[in-house]
Formats: sequence, structure tokens, C-alpha cells
Amino acid sequence: MSKTVLYPGSFDPFTKGHESIVQKALLLFDKLVIGIGKNSEKKGYFTLESRINHLEHLYKDEKRVQILSYEGLTIDLCSKKNINFLLRGLRNNKDFDYEYPISMHNKLLNDNVETIFLCSDLNVSPFQSNIIREIHKSGGNIDVFVSQSSLLRID
Amino acid sequence: MSKTVLYPGSFDPFTKGHESIVQKALLLFDKLVIGIGKNSEKKGYFTLESRINHLEHLYKDEKRVQILSYEGLTIDLCSKKNINFLLRGLRNNKDFDYEYPISMHNKLLNDNVETIFLCSDLNVSPFQSNIIREIHKSGGNIDVFVSQSSLLRID
Amino acid sequence: MSKTVLYPGSFDPFTKGHESIVQKALLLFDKLVIGIGKNSEKKGYFTLESRINHLEHLYKDEKRVQILSYEGLTIDLCSKKNINFLLRGLRNNKDFDYEYPISMHNKLLNDNVETIFLCSDLNVSPFQSNIIREIHKSGGNIDVFVSQSSLLRID
Amino acid sequence: MSKTVLYPGSFDPFTKGHESIVQKALLLFDKLVIGIGKNSEKKGYFTLESRINHLEHLYKDEKRVQILSYEGLTIDLCSKKNINFLLRGLRNNKDFDYEYPISMHNKLLNDNVETIFLCSDLNVSPFQSNIIREIHKSGGNIDVFVSQSSLLRID
Amino acid sequence: MSKTVLYPGSFDPFTKGHESIVQKALLLFDKLVIGIGKNSEKKGYFTLESRINHLEHLYKDEKRVQILSYEGLTIDLCSKKNINFLLRGLRNNKDFDYEYPISMHNKLLNDNVETIFLCSDLNVSPFQSNIIREIHKSGGNIDVFVSQSSLLRID
Amino acid sequence: MSKTVLYPGSFDPFTKGHESIVQKALLLFDKLVIGIGKNSEKKGYFTLESRINHLEHLYKDEKRVQILSYEGLTIDLCSKKNINFLLRGLRNNKDFDYEYPISMHNKLLNDNVETIFLCSDLNVSPFQSNIIREIHKSGGNIDVFVSQSSLLRID
Repeated sequence: MSKTVLYPGSFDPFTKGHESIVQKALLLFDKLVIGIGKNSEKKGYFTLESRINHLEHLYKDEKRVQILSYEGLTIDLCSKKNINFLLRGLRNNKDFDYEYPISMHNKLLNDNVETIFLCSDLNVSPFQSNIIREIHKSGGNIDVFVSQSSLLRID
Repeated sequence: MSKTVLYPGSFDPFTKGHESIVQKALLLFDKLVIGIGKNSEKKGYFTLESRINHLEHLYKDEKRVQILSYEGLTIDLCSKKNINFLLRGLRNNKDFDYEYPISMHNKLLNDNVETIFLCSDLNVSPFQSNIIREIHKSGGNIDVFVSQSSLLRID
Repeated sequence: MSKTVLYPGSFDPFTKGHESIVQKALLLFDKLVIGIGKNSEKKGYFTLESRINHLEHLYKDEKRVQILSYEGLTIDLCSKKNINFLLRGLRNNKDFDYEYPISMHNKLLNDNVETIFLCSDLNVSPFQSNIIREIHKSGGNIDVFVSQSSLLRID
Repeated sequence: MSKTVLYPGSFDPFTKGHESIVQKALLLFDKLVIGIGKNSEKKGYFTLESRINHLEHLYKDEKRVQILSYEGLTIDLCSKKNINFLLRGLRNNKDFDYEYPISMHNKLLNDNVETIFLCSDLNVSPFQSNIIREIHKSGGNIDVFVSQSSLLRID
Repeated sequence: MSKTVLYPGSFDPFTKGHESIVQKALLLFDKLVIGIGKNSEKKGYFTLESRINHLEHLYKDEKRVQILSYEGLTIDLCSKKNINFLLRGLRNNKDFDYEYPISMHNKLLNDNVETIFLCSDLNVSPFQSNIIREIHKSGGNIDVFVSQSSLLRID
Repeated sequence: MSKTVLYPGSFDPFTKGHESIVQKALLLFDKLVIGIGKNSEKKGYFTLESRINHLEHLYKDEKRVQILSYEGLTIDLCSKKNINFLLRGLRNNKDFDYEYPISMHNKLLNDNVETIFLCSDLNVSPFQSNIIREIHKSGGNIDVFVSQSSLLRID
């Protein structure tokens, strides 16, 4: 049976840390859906269009990766797409304390979905989108943190 | 001497995890005041009125529980109400790192008030109001997390 | 109804941090039993006799504090003594991650016993018996950490 | 391609928390090897033989689960058995701080092995073998924590 | 060779905890620059002018301390000012999980800058600017947390 | 005034992570003393002699680094050697929760000694001596974790 995993996030931006998580997950799953959560109230720093475009370029040669954006609950997207696995990266305890209760709420909403946790490769392990946004906002170069970052746009 | 504890929070919403904390605290205290902190700048997701109403229904048969809302410092409410104990629930390290410094600041502001920490029952232990708000906002059913959730209203 | 709490530990030694926890708990409980857990396999650094003696001197004027030593499960001592509350101090996240699962196992063994967590006063908050033992072992003066430390004996 | 994961541990004893991890992993992997690490210097509390026997009974109807014991490095067992995935359960931050550096050392020793982290179901989430051993040692009943615990033996 | 360290922050307000960090750092460095980060989007609670004034008064007799405000990346300020050390205080795990990835991003942006971590003295260790702002906003007295707090102004 | 720091530890073995800490500290201090703590009760895995020899080789060209072994309290060694700074590396929250109370006890024993915390470079950040010992014990190659590891001996 083919196994699909959903990797949800705002990916604002999608970092080399996220890339590392995807690469590892592809060893385990047949198909990986990167779901960019749209927040109707918070626009994001990089435009949604450029974030989608960025990801489509990064994975244009990897047919097993699909990019989409979605509104609403991640767990509802799983139901709609018939996906039984969620993928989340863990960098440190703060991540764990954030992810663990979300996974438990999801489990109570839909017992058929399991959350899988992976850690990125060491050399990209501390990358955080919020820090990278600050660097970009101040005119810093984010190429060390984000592949093909020139594809990203701000309004 | 009768012992009263103040359980402060925004309770937006009051979850089954909070219920579990109250239930345990009632074994220890003669009276428990649930204080819903009003933030003049941040309105909350569920209306204050419905949050108060929700709590009054939940504890309508428990005479030892009193519901009120308040503005200003929690420690000042303790002074005004002549309460010497604060009650806080702990779910994980993030909670501890959040609560510990607050309790220390409170102690320096009023040495007569002690903070008591309890952990909820396991089956409701990961419930978080912020996650539950997200679920509700996206149209999800929050009944598994909140008793009598139909009493809660958004503007 | 009179409320009794059990404060279990090896108290090897009983520090000013433990004293602070006891002092706070006495505001809340009518009676406090300090239970020194005997470990048949691990003798402890200070002799059990001197640890009991130390505590009896510290609380000789506080009739509400009782000192005892015990073998076996803490939760069984609660049953035997008809005690419904356990008291534990929290200093940091390491303590929380240690205490939380123990309290959950205890709850599953005896649903009538609740664990209450308190934090000591700031000025004695980082005191740890294991560090204090190292200091004593190396000939350091432990008076700043332990009241009446001269009552403690090593074999 | 068939996917196999190694679930290493001392499993002293194998708890319902471990069971939950195995159950979830079987959704993801075709085969799961439970590897009981033998420590030549530390015998364990329950006999190795009874731990193996316990696991064989628990999974006698699940052909995809294999039980074995091993000495030496877990990462070497992966090489020998041609296994590319390690499975570890996470309960809290202490687990994360313990597991994360081990996974990073393993990665540096063998870049072909990825560690997958799962969280057990909530109702068994705090179970810890070391606490359960203490309960058993003191004559407590461990049936709530361990399935078919009567199969376990101490010397 | 003279050694200079940059102590960056919003210092909204600069607490006795920050004072303790500065005092310790002055044992180690020849010169200490307190850099108040200006955020073009978030004005801060106390006015920038009064925060600068507050610091200038606190350190008017310490010629080795320089006060400045800056916009943009902290790491860029280091380059401009030819500073090779960043100073950050650590109070607890939350601080560590916040500071660690920032220091790693900084290192990747400028390999010549090292981050030094210090812990404040125990008696001021839990002080947090955000909690102190809440206390001030509600009319509480913040003198126990902030020296010469009367110098601070809100708009 | 010349500044000296003591870097205490069992260094069993001294890893590339420790090397990274030393390298950074040498930017800050004029002299660095690596103090290998001898524990009369616990012999260590690698012989003390080979650990000293290992360090002497690693730093044979760095005149500012001195190697010594010591018994007793680290804080007493500071007094004897007239050293006012202790150096400790931080890798994660577990390290912080371990180091923080030790530094606070030291401060109470000798107010003239400050503890400085540094983080190693990312690529060696998760290295832990205890894991490396396990790898070595099982015949694994530890060269990726320890420079010139062939100098280390076990009895």
C-alpha cells in the first residue's frame, strides 16, 4: 500500500532544515505533500505565491513531492486527502513542547492520523524561519539558510 | 481557618484540563475563585460574557466555586479579596518556564501569596486553549476538549 | 476535616530549600509528614539516623510536622497512613520531567492521592542535595545550604 | 522495497507505552525488529530470558515483529541486519535531550541510518521502565503499566 | 588587546537582572556596549528616549559602558563597531532555546563573532521585562525589579 | 590585568566539542587551565594518565593552555590557583539544568568566581563523552568525535 505523509507548515520561508526533513521523509514515504497553511488573518512575510513557487522549483525533479496550500485545520486536510501521517521536524525542546500537544489534539480529532517526528541534519539543525525573516528584513543575505532564496518575494 | 485559592487565567476557553485542576484543588481548599482576567487591549476569542456564563453553568452546583472577572494585576486581586493562594496548572516544561518567573515576581510584590501547582488528570493533560481556539475558528468540534462548549460565543 | 500531606524524599541532606517547601506547605495543610525513604540497596551519604535526628531538631517546636522513615512505595505509605496528598518541590525543568511521570504512575496506583507542587523561596531555590553532598565530601562548608548541618553524620 | 525498522532498548520491562510505539510504527514499516540490548556489565532487573519470552508472547500473532537481543552498538546491529531506520519513543523533553545527541552520533557513525521519533498514545504516555521496576521491587502491582507482566522474572 | 562586548536587547525596561549581567561582564571585558535595538514596527512600552536616559544615568560613573540604540541586525552592528563578542543572559531553558539558534545563525553570518552567556545573580535571576511591563501597566510598583525606574517614561 | 579561566571536567574523553569551547575561550582569556577532576571513587573509563597525555599533545603548541588534574572542589582549585572564572560548555537544556545550580552553589561558596558559558561550533555541538565511551567500549571508531584519540588508553 502506498504511503503518503503531509508536511504542514507556513514555511515562511522553507529552509534548508525543512529540506533535510523532506529528504529523510522520502526514504520512508512514497509520497510527500508539503502543505502551506494559509492564515486568513496573518499574511505572512514572503508572499504565498512566491513560497509555492519556491517549493515547486526546489522539487521540480522530485515527482513524489506535491506542493499545495490550504486553509483550515491540518487534520481536516488529512481527511480530505486521505492522508494518515503527519510529518514534523524537531530541533529542540521548545519544538517538542509546541508539537506534542498539537499532535495529541489531532489524535483526539482524528484517531487515524499519526504524527512522525524527524530531526534534520546537524549542519542545518538550528535554522528557524522567524530568525531568517528578521535577517532578510534587515537586508541580510539568507542564502546560507535557504536554497534558491531569490525566488522568494515580499509585497 | 477557611482557605481560599484564586485560579486566574483568561480561560479562553475553560477546558476539561482546567476542570481537572479545579476538581483537585477543591480537595485542598474550602473555596476556589476562578478569576477571568480582562485585558483591556486584547478582547479574547470567546466573549467574556459567554466565558463567565460557561463557568457559572459548569459550577452551578458547586457552591464553593465563585466566578468573577477582573482587570489589573492578579496579585492585587489577591490583596483586595484577602486571598493567600494562587493556583496554576502545569502541563509541561513550557508551562513551568512561564509560570515560575511569574510566581517569583508575585512573591516579591506580595510575600503573603503562595502559588500552588497542580497537574491535571492524564487524559486531559495536553489540552491548550490556544489550540482549541484554532480548532473552533476552523469549524472543528471542540466538545472533546471543553464541557458544554455550546455555551461559548464569539462576537 | 484535617488535611495531612506527605513530603517524601531521601533528604540526604534536608536543605534550606526543603525547609522553604515545608514552611509554605504548613500554610496549606494541618499536618505534614516528612517521610525519609530508606533504600535497602543504597545506604545514603549521611546516616539515616542523623538525617532523622537533624529533622527532629529542625522541627522540634513545630508540632504539626512529623518525621518518619519508610521502606517501599511512597504511595503505599499514603494508604497505610491514610494520607491523600503528596508534596514535591520544583526547582527547574529537570525536576518537572522527573516528578511528572512519578505523579502519573502514583495516580494510576492510587487514584485518591494527589501530588501538590511548590517552589521554594528564590534565595534557596537552586539548592540540590547531590551537589551539597559533593561539597561536604570534599571538606567544604555546607552551612549556607543546610541549617544545623553539624547534626548530620557520615559513617 | 520492504522497509524495516529497529526498535532498540533494554525494555526492562517492555511497557504499554512501548506497545503503543510498536503499534504506530507497524503502520509505517513492513517489519519491526525489537532489539533488546544486552549490557555485559549491568544485568538488568528482569531476566533477559523472561524479557524475550514476554515480547515473544506479546507479538506471537504479529508476524511482522521480530524479537532479538544483541550486544554492542545499536548502529552496528543496523549494519549487520541491513536496517536503515531506528525507532525511538519520545515522552518529554528529558527524552528528547537524551535521544537527540545519540541520533546525531549514530548519524556520524553511519549516514545510512535515520532515527524516527514517535509519541505513544496519551493514556500510556508517562510510563517509564525505571519507575515500574521500583514499583515491582516494592511489591506493587504493575499490570496497569505492563501487559502480561506475569511472564517477567527476576533472578 | 582591548576587548569589547556588545550587550544587545530591547531592555524594555533594563532590569536589575540586566544590571547583574553587565556587572559580571565588566570583570571580563574592557568595554561594554549596551545596544538598544530599535524595531521600526514595534514601538516598545517605555519610550526609547527614556530607556537610553535610564541607562545613561545607571552607568554615568562607569566609563567602560557605552549606551547606543541601533536598527537592523545585531551582527551588522558588531561588524560596523568592530566588536567580536556578543553578551546574552540566561535565566532558564526557555532563554537557552531562544538564544542558542540565534547565536548559531549569527555565527553563520559572521564567523568572527562569539556569543558569551552569563547568568545573573540569584536574587534577581527571574526578572523578565515582559512581566515587569505588565506590572507597570497595571499600576504596580516596579522598583524592586528596576533601579531608578522613575526615569522611564511611557508615551 | 591578565585573565585566567579554569575549564573543569572529567574529559573522559576530551572531545572536539571541548576543543571548540577552548578555542573560543582563548579569544577571551589570556590563559586557560584545563582541570581534569579526579574522583577517588570512580576511576574513569580512559586512564587519567592518558587523558592528561592526550590534552598535552593537543595543546603542545598553545602555551596559553595549561593541563592539570585535581581532587576536591573545583571552587577550591580556583581559590588555590587564584582563578576568578570558570568555563562551561552548553549543548542543550539538560546541560543548562545541570550547570545552572552548580554555578549558583559555587557562587555561594566563593563570590569571586564567575561562570562563563559558551556553546561549541555547530558541527561538534552534540558530542557527549558518555556516548563516545559507549562507542569505544563496543569497538567503534571514535576519531570523528575525538582528535588524536589513539593517545587515549583504557586499563
